[in-house]
Amino acid sequence: MDIITDIADMQSRSLAARESGKRIAFVPTMGFLHEGHASLLREGRKRGDILVLSIFVNPTQFGPNEDLDRYPRDFARDEAIASAAGVDWIFYPTADTVYPPGYSTYVDVEGGLATVLEGACRPGHFRGVATVVAKLFLSVQPHVAFFGQKDFQQLAVIRRMTQDLNLPVEIVGMPIVREADGLAMSSRNVYLAPDERRQALAIIGALRLAGQAAREGECSPRKLLLLAEGCLHREPDLQIEYVTIRHQATLQETATIDADAVMLIAVRIGKTRLIDNAMLLAKA
Amino acid sequence: MDIITDIADMQSRSLAARESGKRIAFVPTMGFLHEGHASLLREGRKRGDILVLSIFVNPTQFGPNEDLDRYPRDFARDEAIASAAGVDWIFYPTADTVYPPGYSTYVDVEGGLATVLEGACRPGHFRGVATVVAKLFLSVQPHVAFFGQKDFQQLAVIRRMTQDLNLPVEIVGMPIVREADGLAMSSRNVYLAPDERRQALAIIGALRLAGQAAREGECSPRKLLLLAEGCLHREPDLQIEYVTIRHQATLQETATIDADAVMLIAVRIGKTRLIDNAMLLAKA
Repeated sequence: MDIITDIADMQSRSLAARESGKRIAFVPTMGFLHEGHASLLREGRKRGDILVLSIFVNPTQFGPNEDLDRYPRDFARDEAIASAAGVDWIFYPTADTVYPPGYSTYVDVEGGLATVLEGACRPGHFRGVATVVAKLFLSVQPHVAFFGQKDFQQLAVIRRMTQDLNLPVEIVGMPIVREADGLAMSSRNVYLAPDERRQALAIIGALRLAGQAAREGECSPRKLLLLAEGCLHREPDLQIEYVTIRHQATLQETATIDADAVMLIAVRIGKTRLIDNAMLLAKA
Repeated sequence: MDIITDIADMQSRSLAARESGKRIAFVPTMGFLHEGHASLLREGRKRGDILVLSIFVNPTQFGPNEDLDRYPRDFARDEAIASAAGVDWIFYPTADTVYPPGYSTYVDVEGGLATVLEGACRPGHFRGVATVVAKLFLSVQPHVAFFGQKDFQQLAVIRRMTQDLNLPVEIVGMPIVREADGLAMSSRNVYLAPDERRQALAIIGALRLAGQAAREGECSPRKLLLLAEGCLHREPDLQIEYVTIRHQATLQETATIDADAVMLIAVRIGKTRLIDNAMLLAKA
């Protein structure tokens, strides 16, 4: 397993691999890998001749008051997980390599997709995401790339950007991986104090309660939202940023509970911000 | 010579050519080809195994009151010029193919480079240019691409965008090709009535006068600008949009007349907007 820190080195290896007919599978991450990332790597291992993992905590997708500085990092542990998953190359550039002095180019996804929900709560977030993912795709030159569905809106923005810019990359969204008690895996879970960790279970509780009601025939978004909110409101330190039901492709509000309806939740618990989601008619 | 209108078709041909070790040279244009474009094609023919010409009048780089609708087009003539120059593939997509319904992604070059001069006169112009060039690069997957130095700022913006996004494309700027009397070749020259065509010679007159003075030792930007402006003011139907001396890489104003100093001119003559430029210490 090679660790590559230079963009030109990364790119020339990938272009040479492509010329020799190799298929490149890519899992971009911010590191501090958990079982969710491992599931992406396992799928990537199956679907590529060369499996590339990138680890880059991208400063441009963090707002000024967000957790860039304290975002958890553990390269030695990530390296062990990557090695066990059969990663061939870890792309591990510094921020100065990705954004050298004079850097001035940004990729913007406009329209509702990137301005609602996370885009409204975190101005500039998806501009940072779209820009870095475009740059990572161009550095790694993958045939196929894997993203977790926990970051549901991110996946939609990346699909849009990839299609719009004609990047020749197949985007694969992979199911959310959860802890035994249902909490969605996230590098940020490490921030949670024990009591906060317990309160965070209200998120999956809310998704399951609304999903169960929907599958039993409740077709009013308003009533499903009330059920979910009721569940969340029971926890004293949990502040709702949004609970909403959207069409999965457009992320616009929907009045219809059908196979395209997804419930998305963002909350704060203490200093930690958590997101989760579920397709309402699928069993969460 | 093949004419390719579909992006996926274009891309799969290019990716297959790259996999078979072929070097792709690319000349992106808006068509209505002239000797300037032909010089790019000749250089491309020398430097690639496969020579690709794109013809696309890109709507997103035109402002609402600009000449998109009347921009000159003559595909049959372009095809003959391309064939004579040894083009292998003409990429000729429609606007709906490049910007299908739901299209939402734009590439922005920020900082002074894209907001001064043409960027100030034509808001949104370079956003359209950067976006379409990124898309064309990703569709055609070239190793090397050729641009004329007449669009001096465009070339600087494209170099910046290509470097920033890690597009693996070598950008080659080629010298301005002029008519026998010195007018820079431009598809827009066809707009000029005979008397406007004559007045347009004041542009190259101004560049040559200032260049000669600079080479003879005049080192005051203010005096060089007065010389150039005096030359332009002699023509009754010529309105100056800007005459300026800049550093060639940053396009910021410079107080020093050295090898990096470029004089840039934009004027209107009647309804036609023309631009030109010259390195002050090189013989124009």
